[in-house]
Amino acid sequence: MHTLVLILDLVGTFVFALSGGMMAARRRLDLFGVLVLSFAAASAGGITRDLLIGAVPPAALVDWRYPAVSLAAGVVTFLWTPWIERLQTPVRMFDALGLAVFAVAGTHKALAFGLAPPMAAGLGMLTGIGGGMLRDLLMTEVPLVLRAELYAVAALAGAFVVAAGDTLGLHDTATAVAGALVCFGLRMTALRLGWHLPVALTSRNGRIPPRDRR
Amino acid sequence: MHTLVLILDLVGTFVFALSGGMMAARRRLDLFGVLVLSFAAASAGGITRDLLIGAVPPAALVDWRYPAVSLAAGVVTFLWTPWIERLQTPVRMFDALGLAVFAVAGTHKALAFGLAPPMAAGLGMLTGIGGGMLRDLLMTEVPLVLRAELYAVAALAGAFVVAAGDTLGLHDTATAVAGALVCFGLRMTALRLGWHLPVALTSRNGRIPPRDRR
Amino acid sequence: MHTLVLILDLVGTFVFALSGGMMAARRRLDLFGVLVLSFAAASAGGITRDLLIGAVPPAALVDWRYPAVSLAAGVVTFLWTPWIERLQTPVRMFDALGLAVFAVAGTHKALAFGLAPPMAAGLGMLTGIGGGMLRDLLMTEVPLVLRAELYAVAALAGAFVVAAGDTLGLHDTATAVAGALVCFGLRMTALRLGWHLPVALTSRNGRIPPRDRR
Repeated sequence: MHTLVLILDLVGTFVFALSGGMMAARRRLDLFGVLVLSFAAASAGGITRDLLIGAVPPAALVDWRYPAVSLAAGVVTFLWTPWIERLQTPVRMFDALGLAVFAVAGTHKALAFGLAPPMAAGLGMLTGIGGGMLRDLLMTEVPLVLRAELYAVAALAGAFVVAAGDTLGLHDTATAVAGALVCFGLRMTALRLGWHLPVALTSRNGRIPPRDRR
Repeated sequence: MHTLVLILDLVGTFVFALSGGMMAARRRLDLFGVLVLSFAAASAGGITRDLLIGAVPPAALVDWRYPAVSLAAGVVTFLWTPWIERLQTPVRMFDALGLAVFAVAGTHKALAFGLAPPMAAGLGMLTGIGGGMLRDLLMTEVPLVLRAELYAVAALAGAFVVAAGDTLGLHDTATAVAGALVCFGLRMTALRLGWHLPVALTSRNGRIPPRDRR
Repeated sequence: MHTLVLILDLVGTFVFALSGGMMAARRRLDLFGVLVLSFAAASAGGITRDLLIGAVPPAALVDWRYPAVSLAAGVVTFLWTPWIERLQTPVRMFDALGLAVFAVAGTHKALAFGLAPPMAAGLGMLTGIGGGMLRDLLMTEVPLVLRAELYAVAALAGAFVVAAGDTLGLHDTATAVAGALVCFGLRMTALRLGWHLPVALTSRNGRIPPRDRR
């Protein structure tokens, strides 16, 4: 089981790093920018979680496999950008898989450091979405996760399954698998069916508002 | 007294969360985006302070009342956005109150963790303004606090009163009240009279410069 | 030697703070904004490194000389903005010097906290470039370091010299000087000769793409 989690974790890291590298390549950053965005997209969620629970230095800086995999993904992106651009569908599926693994593993780690289950679920979600948020912020974009099809909500749902299983004393592996399936299934279904969360009604509803200040 | 501080702290959390939720709603984020911005605006200042002084996990992730209040404010914003838009004046007053409470409480906590008084005052200010800064950055805006009417300066002034009172060995409660009054009074006066800090003279003064690079 | 390092460190802090203050002044922030950007540009790299290795509170909040020097640079920028604007060449040289010192000192500190040499080199680089990244993010710019002439790469090269010297058991002072010279020399040469890292080929190559989403 542990080997499976490690493999999935590294797959998640690789795919998240691809998403960061692709964004950097599309915005015409140089090789270094591509590598930074790859590493940031793959690791920022876990690093932030580790800082918040006091697990320093963060795992992504201690276990060499994580940076190695993200930098490899960055190099791959840099060399074969147009080719990866055409792989949207498999990349999205792996991305949903990475999200599921990160959300479940992040919740486990936060529980192990003594956080209350609802907070642990929140940190699990953050593990899944934090990398994408930093990737977007570095490119001065409003984080996609604040708009996309049930992305963060899928992570949160999976994380809550793990947190609830822990509270109820269920078997770790069973709840981990269930949580990952909930997250993955919810995200893939939302993508296929175009599910979105509702948007607030404002006095200026019906049009996209200009940037509010500047 | 402690009950009063807790109530003010939760009022501050609620109002800051409203400001984050309102911004998200105006920018047409979905329900999840509104909740994230509410939580970020209410908690990022305190969380950053706690990370910097080594108080992990941060209070906002340990005491369930803080996330509960910010998420409640997010739901309120989401459901009644146009109604809250019309409440500018009371929201600004509560916001100044929240700023005062956060600045004073943040300074106290930093002093309790052994920081020197001037640094503790800086962290008190950060507690007050950090949430608004993250809110603006997530929406890719230059933080309002870097431009607004004596916002951060009011927080810093209140924080310095607390830090100075600690250095002089004055009574905690007295300096806390004095610091909060200084911050609140300064901010409300600046709002009413339109006080601003001076702007530097540059070689291109007199016009708003284009964004420097892109 | 220690006095020399301290002086160089403070020179680096001062010059990085100038760069932050200049950007704030050009974007017409007020005095407070100038001071915040000065402090952020000078200290964010070191603070992030300290958070990641568990050295809290960070040195920049414990040793009063660092904030004092950055705030002094902010005041200088504010008062004499047009004058500093004309000093591009010396400021760039001092900036390269600051980068070299920060990269070397950051690597040393990370090694002293037990990180593996490659990770320590990465944190040394982050010490050098983190401040500029936060400066740019606060102004909602894509960090210049992701595009500029071998800026981060120079920092990384210098940091790797220090990390390699540590692995090989060479004398600390010798590797520190060598690392700083490598970083400084690489950056100055890149500036003079206009060296850039390559950019990825994308399907839309040849033109600057529009912002991808909004």
